[in-house]
Amino acid sequence: MKKDTIPTSGSITRGEYSGSRKIYVRGKLHDIEVAMREVIVSPTKTSSFGLEELIPNPVVTLYDTSGPYTDPNAQIDITKGLPRLREQWIKDRGDVEQLGDFSAEYSNERMSNDKLEHLRFEHIRLPYRAKAGSNVSQLHYARKGIITAEMEYIAIRENQRIDELMNNSELWAQHAGHSFGANTPVKKITPEFVRDEIAKGRAIIPNNINHPESEPMIIGRNFLVKINTNIGNSAVTSSIEEEVEKAVWSCRWGGDTLMDLSTGKNIHETREWIIRNCPVPVGTVPIYQALEKVNGKAEDLTWEIFRDTLIEQAEQGVDYFTIHAGVLLRYVPLTAKRVTGIVSRGGSIMAKWCLAHHKENFLYTHFEEICDIMKAYDVSFSLGDGLRPGCIADANDAAQFGELETLGELTKIAWKHDIQVMIEGPGHVPMHLIKENMDKQLECCDEAPFYTLGPLTTDIAPGYDHITSAIGAAMIGWYGTAMLCYVTPKEHLGLPDKKDVKDGVIAYKIAAHAADLAKGHPGSQYRDNALSKARFEFRWEDQFNLSLDPETARSYHDETLPADGAKIAHFCSMCGPHFCSMKITQDIREYAKNEEAMQKGMEEKSKEFVETGAEIYK
Amino acid sequence: MKKDTIPTSGSITRGEYSGSRKIYVRGKLHDIEVAMREVIVSPTKTSSFGLEELIPNPVVTLYDTSGPYTDPNAQIDITKGLPRLREQWIKDRGDVEQLGDFSAEYSNERMSNDKLEHLRFEHIRLPYRAKAGSNVSQLHYARKGIITAEMEYIAIRENQRIDELMNNSELWAQHAGHSFGANTPVKKITPEFVRDEIAKGRAIIPNNINHPESEPMIIGRNFLVKINTNIGNSAVTSSIEEEVEKAVWSCRWGGDTLMDLSTGKNIHETREWIIRNCPVPVGTVPIYQALEKVNGKAEDLTWEIFRDTLIEQAEQGVDYFTIHAGVLLRYVPLTAKRVTGIVSRGGSIMAKWCLAHHKENFLYTHFEEICDIMKAYDVSFSLGDGLRPGCIADANDAAQFGELETLGELTKIAWKHDIQVMIEGPGHVPMHLIKENMDKQLECCDEAPFYTLGPLTTDIAPGYDHITSAIGAAMIGWYGTAMLCYVTPKEHLGLPDKKDVKDGVIAYKIAAHAADLAKGHPGSQYRDNALSKARFEFRWEDQFNLSLDPETARSYHDETLPADGAKIAHFCSMCGPHFCSMKITQDIREYAKNEEAMQKGMEEKSKEFVETGAEIYK
Repeated sequence: MKKDTIPTSGSITRGEYSGSRKIYVRGKLHDIEVAMREVIVSPTKTSSFGLEELIPNPVVTLYDTSGPYTDPNAQIDITKGLPRLREQWIKDRGDVEQLGDFSAEYSNERMSNDKLEHLRFEHIRLPYRAKAGSNVSQLHYARKGIITAEMEYIAIRENQRIDELMNNSELWAQHAGHSFGANTPVKKITPEFVRDEIAKGRAIIPNNINHPESEPMIIGRNFLVKINTNIGNSAVTSSIEEEVEKAVWSCRWGGDTLMDLSTGKNIHETREWIIRNCPVPVGTVPIYQALEKVNGKAEDLTWEIFRDTLIEQAEQGVDYFTIHAGVLLRYVPLTAKRVTGIVSRGGSIMAKWCLAHHKENFLYTHFEEICDIMKAYDVSFSLGDGLRPGCIADANDAAQFGELETLGELTKIAWKHDIQVMIEGPGHVPMHLIKENMDKQLECCDEAPFYTLGPLTTDIAPGYDHITSAIGAAMIGWYGTAMLCYVTPKEHLGLPDKKDVKDGVIAYKIAAHAADLAKGHPGSQYRDNALSKARFEFRWEDQFNLSLDPETARSYHDETLPADGAKIAHFCSMCGPHFCSMKITQDIREYAKNEEAMQKGMEEKSKEFVETGAEIYK
Repeated sequence: MKKDTIPTSGSITRGEYSGSRKIYVRGKLHDIEVAMREVIVSPTKTSSFGLEELIPNPVVTLYDTSGPYTDPNAQIDITKGLPRLREQWIKDRGDVEQLGDFSAEYSNERMSNDKLEHLRFEHIRLPYRAKAGSNVSQLHYARKGIITAEMEYIAIRENQRIDELMNNSELWAQHAGHSFGANTPVKKITPEFVRDEIAKGRAIIPNNINHPESEPMIIGRNFLVKINTNIGNSAVTSSIEEEVEKAVWSCRWGGDTLMDLSTGKNIHETREWIIRNCPVPVGTVPIYQALEKVNGKAEDLTWEIFRDTLIEQAEQGVDYFTIHAGVLLRYVPLTAKRVTGIVSRGGSIMAKWCLAHHKENFLYTHFEEICDIMKAYDVSFSLGDGLRPGCIADANDAAQFGELETLGELTKIAWKHDIQVMIEGPGHVPMHLIKENMDKQLECCDEAPFYTLGPLTTDIAPGYDHITSAIGAAMIGWYGTAMLCYVTPKEHLGLPDKKDVKDGVIAYKIAAHAADLAKGHPGSQYRDNALSKARFEFRWEDQFNLSLDPETARSYHDETLPADGAKIAHFCSMCGPHFCSMKITQDIREYAKNEEAMQKGMEEKSKEFVETGAEIYK
């Protein structure tokens, strides 16, 4: 096992995105500034009548998950954590109080343990909690008709400056002469629309009042499809330093939320470091830590230990909890004849507990008490699919769908408490069975957002499960899944390192974006068109900077044509300098222009002919 | 530009597949031996009453595209080429003659050029051609009711020993206690079914009589989904040695056919080396070479030059030709307002020629003459989609679908000549527009097999287009596309090297297999189930050997747990030794067995109760 080392600012990746700048868009309802990334593109070079002309191209604004790390002006001190962006918004609502102590026994125990001093985050603050009788969830506000600062932030963020885009796309269509925009229904997402979707339970904003460092984001099928990344150590691998860097790294490449799935030692301290430095919502599976507290013996778990763990984590700032409350005793035997039984760790822990005690799952029997805890901090539910299929053969079986029905029941209970809910989904599903998952989830869970792991569409490619699952993820995203949990190339084989995290994130950004395109999300096609236009015009640097991974695109190009001149050359290594289909198309445009002119000339003549009497012999 | 070097046996990858052996299955109708790969799996370890028991698992037979290179007993001499597997079959049909000379002027010119001596394949043979008045195409034989050796070979190959599989799966279900086979409709592919599909034009067997080294394979939507790989040099990169190794390498990882897209120098000599050593069908785009012959000036192309090129390549053994005969003059202006115009090289060459001469495409006007050449060698048509979209914005437009209708017309003409035909498809298509492509192709082209390039489902990930396109490829494969042309990570950025070829092949094997699963192809799920069962039972080596890329899977595993002991350990680095969901499931099985036993006991009692009169008080 590696030694636990704590992060220093030097161990974290910083720096601007290639060819881009950080911008901030101001709110109108609230005093907020929404961070975005603006890609600076070069002008189009054309020549008319032998003179070179430069036609400017509009900048492209992109959704930015990287947090302050990509802002060269931001002061980052990893030992102090990120700026507390939302703290004032939370305080201003007047329904929270700062506690004098931690409410969880375990938190106090860890705080007072001197041996942990060298691992502990330096600037731990006392937690906030809802005042007695208050509910601080975004769902609660939404149902009361309140548009919070978080909701306005999200509306601005999701729009990616769509007003300007509309103007620009018209302008662009004008000089490029092509049909941009025809497939893109440009409609604006308003703060009121965000509120309404939250109020209906169709979307959630996971943001614990104790994680004010996070930038508000929304998970719902009428918004951009989001991706979650998993990190976390296990008993045999990784250090705190590595995990924090993986968290920042995954946000840099586009992770929208982050799950800390640590199962090894010092889970409490690792999580504190991660949350304080993480600009996106953080989720956990609290049962993992509870299990560590009973030395890995599932049968020794109790509601009391679990409850203390929930409060411990809620006061650290975890934004959503995966709770496997749908693993009912009666479903467990349904998994016995499966090829791969139960593969969800949380699911198997609860199954083991149920069998050992021959009692109903305590997460189910104590569900309303869990709700009472969650609403005091605005922690969202991610109702876990503990019985998800672990291979193609087990997809869509009685155990899986039985649990899904129970998750539907639990959704209604959570909503009764104004708690935000999303539902976890599979797993391993062949393509022809994917849609059934989505349809059944919408029906059973009254349109609560779906959050799926892939699904993997075949089992035969360990080492490439980011790809087997990106296929399923793109499809289920198109069908309506709101968030896709990434799968890295190491799935089934080991824990992901930094390279795997990046590979997983990029594969899932592809899946999510492909789904956004297929759903016709406002403005999604803008980036594709801008990149393709740059490609067509041999603006290589623009093509790289508009891509999901400029570094890789640039290095692949440079492998065959490393000279700087090649990046502005009107050819590439695929066809060589003498023959190029893109060049030929330029000729076609000239031809078509002439054809059009000729056609127009003919029409004028024809019009003249008709106007002057339409007689051949005058 | 790199120096052209010729291959030596040392420059070619050989060696058996990990944990597998090469087997040969004999034909019944013909004296043939069909090569396959058998993966040897270890037994399942269980313990009952404290005694360890070993239950054997059935071997898994896999479709094998690697040719003799993975047979340790095969003699390989790269300078002589592969054994001429089909030569006797072809001769035995009595309808071909060996020529005394090459029929193409260019071939004779190259043969007599002393300066090419150092590059030339040593053992060039004189070509075969159909006797006057004969048609040697598989479609011709099929329509006459003849089941050729090629057809029987294919039936055996596609079945992957499905009879034995049926028996084994029952056996397996018995000892594993799970529901294997329930989702897998096991039906056998017969030689007669192969003949019938060919006769209907729904499938093709690309195998030129001058490429007898190739192992017969079929492309059609009622068979396994196939993948094509592209290799080939350009004016700025690569050598003959590298291209031949890429060809063998791509077959090793699962490429079903290979296109040589060379556009640089010495295309003729490069192709000879590739074909002589390639165990899978080889396709080309003859217009590329024709263009080189006129020094890259599209307007200088003539029917005569093209015709000579077709004959030159047909006599070398090219199995299918991409012919862009659907790029009609009237469609060209339809591309002018596109974001990326014409991106197909062949399409843009023909468009330029049409515009320069203001004449109809000579491939269209000479189409029946092309048919006459093709049937003399059994070269299949791959009707090129020269107007395919080059970006998301241009998908499914008037130019693309106009050309598709023309390809439908041409299919009927080819069929009139008993020539085999497949149709090329896009390209770049967002997910929601993919199915329309498939439906329209089936309708326009009377179910001739579809062969698509991806499609890429978004433009924003250069460097990862094997993934953006594997998504579209898997979907369109499910919808009915018969062959998927791979896309490598270098797409849009440079020519693929060996690593890229492998990455592209694996991504496409995933897409094709995911499609086979979704289509319920006989026996496809067998490999998934065998791998998942191995995974569940911690048979790590079996899991690796059953995977698409055992080397990568093994090395990823070893990164975190390198010790040999870990590969037989009942845990992995994801959860560590103390906690493992797979272990817990074993407990559940025990429990369920007991429950079942209890239930059975109750039922027996109940039966007894009913049988003895169903009276409570006797």
